[in-house]
Amino acid sequence: MRHDGRRNDELRTVNIETDYIKHPEGSVLISFGDTKVICTASIEDRVPPFLRGQGKGWITAEYSMLPRATEQRNIREASKGKLSGRTMEIQRLIGRALRSVVDLTAIGERTIWIDCDVIQADGGTRTASVTGAFVAMAAALHKLLAEKRITAYPIKKYLAAVSVGLDANEGAILDLNYVEDSKAAVDMNVIMTGDGEFVELQGTGEEATFSRRELNEMLRLAEKGIYELFQQQQNVLGEAANHFDSPVKTEADSDLQGAQETMKNED
Amino acid sequence: MRHDGRRNDELRTVNIETDYIKHPEGSVLISFGDTKVICTASIEDRVPPFLRGQGKGWITAEYSMLPRATEQRNIREASKGKLSGRTMEIQRLIGRALRSVVDLTAIGERTIWIDCDVIQADGGTRTASVTGAFVAMAAALHKLLAEKRITAYPIKKYLAAVSVGLDANEGAILDLNYVEDSKAAVDMNVIMTGDGEFVELQGTGEEATFSRRELNEMLRLAEKGIYELFQQQQNVLGEAANHFDSPVKTEADSDLQGAQETMKNED
Amino acid sequence: MRHDGRRNDELRTVNIETDYIKHPEGSVLISFGDTKVICTASIEDRVPPFLRGQGKGWITAEYSMLPRATEQRNIREASKGKLSGRTMEIQRLIGRALRSVVDLTAIGERTIWIDCDVIQADGGTRTASVTGAFVAMAAALHKLLAEKRITAYPIKKYLAAVSVGLDANEGAILDLNYVEDSKAAVDMNVIMTGDGEFVELQGTGEEATFSRRELNEMLRLAEKGIYELFQQQQNVLGEAANHFDSPVKTEADSDLQGAQETMKNED
Amino acid sequence: MRHDGRRNDELRTVNIETDYIKHPEGSVLISFGDTKVICTASIEDRVPPFLRGQGKGWITAEYSMLPRATEQRNIREASKGKLSGRTMEIQRLIGRALRSVVDLTAIGERTIWIDCDVIQADGGTRTASVTGAFVAMAAALHKLLAEKRITAYPIKKYLAAVSVGLDANEGAILDLNYVEDSKAAVDMNVIMTGDGEFVELQGTGEEATFSRRELNEMLRLAEKGIYELFQQQQNVLGEAANHFDSPVKTEADSDLQGAQETMKNED
Amino acid sequence: MRHDGRRNDELRTVNIETDYIKHPEGSVLISFGDTKVICTASIEDRVPPFLRGQGKGWITAEYSMLPRATEQRNIREASKGKLSGRTMEIQRLIGRALRSVVDLTAIGERTIWIDCDVIQADGGTRTASVTGAFVAMAAALHKLLAEKRITAYPIKKYLAAVSVGLDANEGAILDLNYVEDSKAAVDMNVIMTGDGEFVELQGTGEEATFSRRELNEMLRLAEKGIYELFQQQQNVLGEAANHFDSPVKTEADSDLQGAQETMKNED
Amino acid sequence: MRHDGRRNDELRTVNIETDYIKHPEGSVLISFGDTKVICTASIEDRVPPFLRGQGKGWITAEYSMLPRATEQRNIREASKGKLSGRTMEIQRLIGRALRSVVDLTAIGERTIWIDCDVIQADGGTRTASVTGAFVAMAAALHKLLAEKRITAYPIKKYLAAVSVGLDANEGAILDLNYVEDSKAAVDMNVIMTGDGEFVELQGTGEEATFSRRELNEMLRLAEKGIYELFQQQQNVLGEAANHFDSPVKTEADSDLQGAQETMKNED
Repeated sequence: MRHDGRRNDELRTVNIETDYIKHPEGSVLISFGDTKVICTASIEDRVPPFLRGQGKGWITAEYSMLPRATEQRNIREASKGKLSGRTMEIQRLIGRALRSVVDLTAIGERTIWIDCDVIQADGGTRTASVTGAFVAMAAALHKLLAEKRITAYPIKKYLAAVSVGLDANEGAILDLNYVEDSKAAVDMNVIMTGDGEFVELQGTGEEATFSRRELNEMLRLAEKGIYELFQQQQNVLGEAANHFDSPVKTEADSDLQGAQETMKNED
Repeated sequence: MRHDGRRNDELRTVNIETDYIKHPEGSVLISFGDTKVICTASIEDRVPPFLRGQGKGWITAEYSMLPRATEQRNIREASKGKLSGRTMEIQRLIGRALRSVVDLTAIGERTIWIDCDVIQADGGTRTASVTGAFVAMAAALHKLLAEKRITAYPIKKYLAAVSVGLDANEGAILDLNYVEDSKAAVDMNVIMTGDGEFVELQGTGEEATFSRRELNEMLRLAEKGIYELFQQQQNVLGEAANHFDSPVKTEADSDLQGAQETMKNED
Repeated sequence: MRHDGRRNDELRTVNIETDYIKHPEGSVLISFGDTKVICTASIEDRVPPFLRGQGKGWITAEYSMLPRATEQRNIREASKGKLSGRTMEIQRLIGRALRSVVDLTAIGERTIWIDCDVIQADGGTRTASVTGAFVAMAAALHKLLAEKRITAYPIKKYLAAVSVGLDANEGAILDLNYVEDSKAAVDMNVIMTGDGEFVELQGTGEEATFSRRELNEMLRLAEKGIYELFQQQQNVLGEAANHFDSPVKTEADSDLQGAQETMKNED
Repeated sequence: MRHDGRRNDELRTVNIETDYIKHPEGSVLISFGDTKVICTASIEDRVPPFLRGQGKGWITAEYSMLPRATEQRNIREASKGKLSGRTMEIQRLIGRALRSVVDLTAIGERTIWIDCDVIQADGGTRTASVTGAFVAMAAALHKLLAEKRITAYPIKKYLAAVSVGLDANEGAILDLNYVEDSKAAVDMNVIMTGDGEFVELQGTGEEATFSRRELNEMLRLAEKGIYELFQQQQNVLGEAANHFDSPVKTEADSDLQGAQETMKNED
Repeated sequence: MRHDGRRNDELRTVNIETDYIKHPEGSVLISFGDTKVICTASIEDRVPPFLRGQGKGWITAEYSMLPRATEQRNIREASKGKLSGRTMEIQRLIGRALRSVVDLTAIGERTIWIDCDVIQADGGTRTASVTGAFVAMAAALHKLLAEKRITAYPIKKYLAAVSVGLDANEGAILDLNYVEDSKAAVDMNVIMTGDGEFVELQGTGEEATFSRRELNEMLRLAEKGIYELFQQQQNVLGEAANHFDSPVKTEADSDLQGAQETMKNED
Repeated sequence: MRHDGRRNDELRTVNIETDYIKHPEGSVLISFGDTKVICTASIEDRVPPFLRGQGKGWITAEYSMLPRATEQRNIREASKGKLSGRTMEIQRLIGRALRSVVDLTAIGERTIWIDCDVIQADGGTRTASVTGAFVAMAAALHKLLAEKRITAYPIKKYLAAVSVGLDANEGAILDLNYVEDSKAAVDMNVIMTGDGEFVELQGTGEEATFSRRELNEMLRLAEKGIYELFQQQQNVLGEAANHFDSPVKTEADSDLQGAQETMKNED
């Protein structure tokens, strides 16, 4: 049993509070246990220079932590005058993931700015950010459609993210909190769509490695957790959810089986 | 009557939620109407180089707004790589004000980092920051005392801030929201202590001026508003409030009278 | 008596040398005692992006100190790669103050760049800067009018600034030099127009506070000093002074009396 | 067949020229087809502040491209004054990967600086960098051991990296060149150790997704390619190779089979 | 005799490898002994803002060293976030020198970007850069002419550079390597054209000085060395060399004779 | 005759006002015609890290121009956040030149900070800076000796600088003002010591070249001008001049004669 009493395949309590901030077109406060992130989606009626005149839009994300979101106070990146490599990695990841489920042509020459600001951190801030940002973006686009500024809903699939990892005692575990993350030999972030496909897979063994078998077990937990996140998103999306196909439960076993058969055929 | 129905000398609804973030030694979410600021106080067991070895502490503040705290999204200062002049002014103001009511020797060689992060802005963010930061700091120092890391409580007086301004139709008004602030000919920020003294007075007429009489009227409103803020602070401080003298209601009239007599004597 | 023999309400020797630098449209070397500032006004025939096409102009100011203007050498901000908060505050203050007495429409789509470079510092550099910059700007606009590039003189009122403060022994004092400024419990910068109105009021008690009565006494000294500065400006402005109303001596007492009566009426 | 005539599971011609630069402790010029990277390893006899006094070392990597390594000239990051997010991601990846196969205690309080400078780019620069940097580092540490500055060889396993991806027509392909990379729906970088374990797995579908079956096929190609890279490394390492276990050919099928059995047991 | 066996007027082995990198319009790897520089010339079809609409082109150069090009590893300027003064001096020098032999009107509204990246340094990197950059530029312009994007060849003269210096024992020496450069009292960089004229002369005595006689002797060596460099350039330019006048041997001896007589007079 | 009536070998009016600023250990306002530079020398009782513990001192220089020192206003480098290449070149040149005439051991572990701030520019700002900085430094070191903080005077020789150039009509000319500098084909800065030796020689033909004969003529003018600058320095140095050998008039003529004969041979 994990130090907070969860089973290996159990998410922390997830909560998504919509319309959290009044100005943005979409905004949520998402919490994965003690990790709390404000995600907002802002619509700007123009695109970056490299896209001008192409009739399509763009989605870009920024990520930050309040200095005392963490146990030790961090120096603000605004005070240091530059973004850390970690911040850049995360915000590139969020933007890339969101773009993978949106028809950029359907949003026209607009930019969707996603801002993920962690106000309290306890592990999994990037996966909470992706999961919350999806809801904020969906709400903003729903509003755009309601105002008839766009004619078709640009999102076709659910998108959510979760972390998995390898613990020395527990083996593969789902949705690591900070204590678990600090001890884990391997940390993997998985982002999937509502039809059970992968968008991003980032597994890292800092001073450690992992086998194919361990990879498979981590992916199984991730698929389970992400399916539960889709259901949470569906609950809070309200009308906006009508534009989507409902999420599909991945049949991990049968998929694996298929993989094995593929291999046999290749022999 | 003001556009939101308030009297000229009426504050917006003020709310102070304590222990808002789990990691910092002190934290609040303060709201002045739709303006919402997370204020945290973090204790660091060392001081900046210019104070080392002098047996006294330091208090420094940082201020930021989430990009979409405002109606239009602002570019992050971390992305621009530098702080704006406005941010620098505000964070210098907050730090200076807090230092004026603290016995820096009593906190020992420690730095109190104050972080004020505006999550929603509707005018008066700097005065809400000062008012909230005082509570966060008081809580952090109370904790330090409870843990016997310091032997005397370093704060002696209440500290709060409010904005006042001149409206073309209404004359002097208290606690301007964003709409009022945008139209006001004159904007003044007033910071006072629990014994009715001024700490900071910053009155600015952007493309406008103000007379001595208008100044006096603005100060009268500020004193009234700040006294009410002291009472709100007292309500949420709990035990920490026992270390303080209760705030004193400024007798503005008698004080003025005194001023006039002074003048006569000088003739 | 003050350490340099002045009375509490006495300015240092003020000198304004016009046409100090040959290239700018207007330039002065202003000295308040040992504080010496080169102020120049440069006319640029375009405005910042946010004002384009609106048929009005802009005034912006920059402030700097030579590294050895002070007793200890300061590191250049150009070498550090960023402006300090203090510099930003001062240059925002200067620009804002100058804009308050200029009809920006009358200057057309032009920017007036004000540069205040302190070559020797002994307290009061920001107030000397405002006072000198006004003269440089008035000269530059006079030249613009003489060259018929504008059709009406855009300045309507005098503008000058002075510092006042509270000394532990002396009480309120006018125009603090560096030694006085270092010891003063309270420092206040006052900017006024030729008709006796306030433009800016910035009073700060670093680790100290001040009462309403002390505020009133400081304002009385400021009004006296600023009136004397207006006369110095008038002396050096030459023909340009004909465009202005002469400065008005503020009747501080009667104004105060009015304030008191206001209060009575409000009871 | 691929546009350059390769089979789907075929690497480009790989060449590793050792001792390419005379000053560094270790250096190679590695080429994967037209991608050419100079990798150097420099030994510094101290560690970053966060490691001082702990008796262990550190490995950190920097990555850059010559401005005209690419078809269009890129602006230098030194001229822009900051590193791009892409650069930061890559250099963090290289450092992390190398640290996973080194006993940091065995190198003592030293830092190994890895520099990967791409002089010609044609896809796969980060995987060529990891593969080449491993050889440069192995050579530098061999030299350190020969000079008796360390007493045990700190590397225990081979390390190499390769990219795989999904092409619309070809399906999974190995070691993408620039043309393939630009068209690929999914791009995955895989870093493995000589005993067949994963160190990093980064799969990204920019505006695309991938199934579990496609993931498995990509991993099969990656394992094959990396095993061939290990053999190239072994060929050029010379004596240094004696410190290592020879690379092990991963039995992908049996591993998969195991995975499947695991799943069955879990049912 | 010099420490590496050269005569005082002897260059190191110079080698120029053309078409070294595949993407740029022109590229060379030039070596002066152990100093190795990749020089590329990139053609961009637009000019900097200050030249727009004037029907002429621009040549600009950037210079950098790989971190471990030198005996001690240097911190990357991209990591520091700014260019050193040394780098700026060198890249300004290279650009200025190349512009002196090109008819900027003949290249049309294009920018030639020169990139000089030192991959191994052993003294004389800036003179090798100028000498190699000339060849890369000549090749790029030859290509432009061949593609009929320009109608006349814009270069009229050869351009090359060499360093000379004063050694305490040897007197004037040609083409200093790092060891010599470190000991030399005076270091002079000379850039000349194929008709024997000077383009740049930069002589520096760091904590030392030099007489007119020593200057003359250094210039004699420089002229000799540069003539030999012209011949190397001619050898590798191929067809592009047909556009040029062949280099002219400066009658250094007779010139020197005069100088020698001067010396006699000075005795 | 030159456009301002000077002969080709004639300096502009040079004026050196000592003790111009009260705080620095040494300060001058130097003017070469309309070019005016404030030069200060500040003594700091420590050295940069690379010199610590070696018992010797350091001299470093910084250079800047007020934004409106020039005909068009320049953006401040402090606002841009970085120094231009031109500024870096000039401040490196000034520091290097001054170090060449000072016994760094004799100043002990101190840094002399030289600040050259151009308040009005009309060509030749860098040579005026070197010439004025030498006087400021000499005065500062004289003061250090008088206060017995050092035991021997560390400067042994005069140091001054002048510009020379080639004008299409006039040929070689001395001490170019801005109009001449803008038109000149070749610009050369010469720095010499009191005993007639060169410290720096920087000749640049931007889009032009110069022959050995022209070089010789420019050097003749430079020697003449610098000798006159030495005499001006001597006049204002007062007592400090007693520590120096008087400047020596270079026998330029005889030297030139040799050069002239060279020219004959070239005919």
